[in-house]
Amino acid sequence: MSDETCIFCDIAANKMPAFRIYEDDRTLAFADINPATPGHTLVIPKQHYVNIMELTPGDVAAVHQTVQRVARAIKATLKPEGIMIAQLNGAAAGQVIMHYHVHLIPRNPGDALSAMSWQMKPGDMAQIEKLAAQIASVL
Amino acid sequence: MSDETCIFCDIAANKMPAFRIYEDDRTLAFADINPATPGHTLVIPKQHYVNIMELTPGDVAAVHQTVQRVARAIKATLKPEGIMIAQLNGAAAGQVIMHYHVHLIPRNPGDALSAMSWQMKPGDMAQIEKLAAQIASVL
Ligand SMILES: [Zn+2]
Ligand SMILES: [Zn+2]
Repeated sequence: MSDETCIFCDIAANKMPAFRIYEDDRTLAFADINPATPGHTLVIPKQHYVNIMELTPGDVAAVHQTVQRVARAIKATLKPEGIMIAQLNGAAAGQVIMHYHVHLIPRNPGDALSAMSWQMKPGDMAQIEKLAAQIASVL
Repeated sequence: MSDETCIFCDIAANKMPAFRIYEDDRTLAFADINPATPGHTLVIPKQHYVNIMELTPGDVAAVHQTVQRVARAIKATLKPEGIMIAQLNGAAAGQVIMHYHVHLIPRNPGDALSAMSWQMKPGDMAQIEKLAAQIASVL
């Protein structure tokens, strides 16, 4: 089910080199070669899925259990103060490679991403309630 | 194991109101009242954990299977072009509430978060290789 033109499928199949960090039957962790901060790591399912809509529940579990394992290893070795975990779905969300992947980004005060948090400002309660009910209606 | 002073434990225990979206034995989804974009939703484990280091593998799976379920519901109802999923560990990564939570943030071109992606720039390959080996050494 791999996509012939997918760079992450090629990495998973060992057709493309990568700095591999961890691997099991379903998942692979390797270094992002455009690191947002030093130690930036990606975790992917070996199976090709474009985004979170497509994964099997088993692969959701496997990927995020690997994310936890790798987060602990990053903490133990690089000792960042924090770790930002991000998973982007769709070009509008900033997704560049169209094979589902989770970013683990070590964070420290004053790092290159310090300005990247969103503003916390109170929302319109009536709108929040309405949208919550709308989402809940299909669950 | 709940933390007496934790607002998310209080929401999980129904001691504090929230716009609840989905709930099962282990997890709860509710609206973020400081939405980064309309429809911003949080998924938490009902059990109190500070960050990803602490979850049981079972709760990792349960939380992210709920994240997938809620992402599909957001897509089906609010129809955003993309969804950004973020989970912040530690104040240095932007974590504000010290109970593990996953953000689901609907994204559309030109939204308030458009400037928030990190710059993709090639890293120092020797350093990337070295850090990857360091993380891998404990896995
Ligand atoms: Zn692929
Ligand atoms: Zn709590």
